[in-house]
Amino acid sequence: MHSDPTLAALAAHYQAMPPVAALRLRIAGYDGDTLRLHAPLAAHVNDKGCAFGGSLASLMTLAGWGLVTLRIQQAGLAADVFVADSEVRFRAPLYADLEAEAALADGESWDAFLADLRDRGRARVFIDAGVRLPAGGVAVESRARFVAVGKG
Amino acid sequence: MHSDPTLAALAAHYQAMPPVAALRLRIAGYDGDTLRLHAPLAAHVNDKGCAFGGSLASLMTLAGWGLVTLRIQQAGLAADVFVADSEVRFRAPLYADLEAEAALADGESWDAFLADLRDRGRARVFIDAGVRLPAGGVAVESRARFVAVGKG
Repeated sequence: MHSDPTLAALAAHYQAMPPVAALRLRIAGYDGDTLRLHAPLAAHVNDKGCAFGGSLASLMTLAGWGLVTLRIQQAGLAADVFVADSEVRFRAPLYADLEAEAALADGESWDAFLADLRDRGRARVFIDAGVRLPAGGVAVESRARFVAVGKG
Repeated sequence: MHSDPTLAALAAHYQAMPPVAALRLRIAGYDGDTLRLHAPLAAHVNDKGCAFGGSLASLMTLAGWGLVTLRIQQAGLAADVFVADSEVRFRAPLYADLEAEAALADGESWDAFLADLRDRGRARVFIDAGVRLPAGGVAVESRARFVAVGKG
């Protein structure tokens, strides 16, 4: 699926988690700054025919978690990554496939995050994520704080 | 499963949503104030062997959504219920089955919520939810705002 072995490893990591495999997600893109995840609406439709809020929140959390995981691996470090807290705002119903994207929040720094992880064995970072509407605008957006705890 | 037809209808409503059916949840209890939902850890285990954050958040959202839905039905009204926003704080990893409970947030009133829905066709309410640890304490807690829009 992914010619990049780091992305292939992340995809395998997602699929190894039963609740994540159930989401039927795939990695839709990664440019070093933004990670995009895709999931089919059919697997996530609620009683109103649009995307279930819990699925949207999960996909954004997983995009943020994957982004932090990738940046740690690319820095040659190893850590467990946890979500510590999150705020989600639902703006509009989504009647299309889900595509979540996650990127560093304003004012945050990968260099500072990775330096903390290297020096103290522990670091925190805020990640912003969202899901766009096909016609423009935003279906849902979130800010979440992730904690990385160094291994070994 | 449920001798109370209102709870049986809610259980059927949950199971009719593919992403919710995938959570393998069941209604564990309802006393008029608090709705409890249960899901097996095996369906929700993450890469660290504990409950996946997205599953915990989804279960809390569904408990809140279900509670609001039940209170509306019990008042003899009909409405679509949406989650508008939520804040989730992850406190400790959970290595046991997930049991989420949802209740009205402090300072909120069902009477005021139902009066708004009846008079204006629209109402909002904050619901607190959480998942306890088996040994005491809290794995995760949330506050979410739900919007009800009257039908017919």
